[in-house]
Amino acid sequence: MCNACVIDSVKRSMLSRRSLFTGAAATTAAVVAAGLTSARPALAAGSGKVADLTHAWDSDFPTFDGNPGILYEEAVNIDKSGYQLYKLTIFEHSGTHIDAPLHFSKDGMSVDEIPAGNLVCPLCVIDLKAKAKYDANAMVEPADIEAWVSANGEIPAGACVAFNSGWADKVATPEFRNTPDGNFAFPGFSKAATDLLATMNVACIGTDTLSLDPGNSADFAVHNSWLPSGRYGIEGLAGLDAVPARGATIFVGAPKHKKGTGGPARVLAVY
Amino acid sequence: MCNACVIDSVKRSMLSRRSLFTGAAATTAAVVAAGLTSARPALAAGSGKVADLTHAWDSDFPTFDGNPGILYEEAVNIDKSGYQLYKLTIFEHSGTHIDAPLHFSKDGMSVDEIPAGNLVCPLCVIDLKAKAKYDANAMVEPADIEAWVSANGEIPAGACVAFNSGWADKVATPEFRNTPDGNFAFPGFSKAATDLLATMNVACIGTDTLSLDPGNSADFAVHNSWLPSGRYGIEGLAGLDAVPARGATIFVGAPKHKKGTGGPARVLAVY
Repeated sequence: MCNACVIDSVKRSMLSRRSLFTGAAATTAAVVAAGLTSARPALAAGSGKVADLTHAWDSDFPTFDGNPGILYEEAVNIDKSGYQLYKLTIFEHSGTHIDAPLHFSKDGMSVDEIPAGNLVCPLCVIDLKAKAKYDANAMVEPADIEAWVSANGEIPAGACVAFNSGWADKVATPEFRNTPDGNFAFPGFSKAATDLLATMNVACIGTDTLSLDPGNSADFAVHNSWLPSGRYGIEGLAGLDAVPARGATIFVGAPKHKKGTGGPARVLAVY
Repeated sequence: MCNACVIDSVKRSMLSRRSLFTGAAATTAAVVAAGLTSARPALAAGSGKVADLTHAWDSDFPTFDGNPGILYEEAVNIDKSGYQLYKLTIFEHSGTHIDAPLHFSKDGMSVDEIPAGNLVCPLCVIDLKAKAKYDANAMVEPADIEAWVSANGEIPAGACVAFNSGWADKVATPEFRNTPDGNFAFPGFSKAATDLLATMNVACIGTDTLSLDPGNSADFAVHNSWLPSGRYGIEGLAGLDAVPARGATIFVGAPKHKKGTGGPARVLAVY
């Protein structure tokens, strides 16, 4: 089935299910770009559990370009001054981190400009482990989204749609980034999938790998379309095994430095 | 009344009120230090509103030592590479940020070691504006905590207790940091107040100023007692006018770099 046909199919399917599910009605993608603070649904009461979806990281944490993403220099010594702190050198797209629209567009929102309401999102987790087991460059395709909707209902307004490929478990190994022959190899989203999500009032996409695009991408098609559309992404998520496919709320602790193209973030989920 | 007498008075007062309020029962401070993930109460349903308690910041943001807390260097240029990102130099205790126990103790928890459950907290806001209007170095005292409890009920387990002195409105002016004669001058907590909070299963304290201690502190008494006790603090909060004195839940997006003594954080509240 062609991608356009799949998209139409999923949209028809979702419309037909709309009366069955209680999520907030989807509005337009423009509402996501403008911030959903006032439209944010009340939090589900949940169980009160907190999951940390963030890797602890340091200079050994894998990065896209292979260079350390963070360097430490002692700025104040506790023996001399009674307290201590570091001067850090941080490359913005390191560790568990945010891609702001500005990362791939000259006039996109910087990380401090992402509306706070878009940082509190219903979390939808697509299980990509079975596909990724046999293809290190597996992609979330529109059919995976359709399968998620069939199993879990409509994607809630303002959601974060993330995949769990099992890659977080590889973070301390070379396989997090490469195949044995040294080529990039890790799962990502397909552009057809994110084009579909862009019609669904989704605030952000999330991956448990180094990128939004798969490792063997030649054109960064997702980066070049999703981010310039005014939406953001999260890369390098951890701990997705702990949360349900539907029902958690994610808090995206994106940094707030002005002009930022993104940056290391603390991502927490309650469920 | 001596501080010890006030503390006893507040504790007796709170015990007598315990049957009147529905907050989770206080346990021991050791539970806070160990992490409250499993004991975290379910989130209040709330209205679904999100408040951003974080300042957007850059090199002009005021710092304790007067030097820029963040510096930017272009690492990738969008005209040359199709995307862009910065190499940042960040002094950990800059912007809206966390003080981890390690900041003032050699063996304290680093910022990545703070349990995730302690980063999701019921928020209690003490209004310090009236005192701060007449004394730039005003302090939260035990009596202010007693007054808050009288008005709002018991402090919930695992709370973040923050004060709103109105200082966030001064952030673009010299008065955020100094009196006209150049001395440090801003509100903070008194040690008597934080000693009391340490008996109440409070996870963290928060200020809308440059420090946990007031500007004219000679000994950093709060830093030197609260942090080594295994608890953390938040400095430089913004937006506290938007949230109620009681009833919001705060999400403390602390960074998660290993060995960190703290760092710039994204702090969100839902209410």
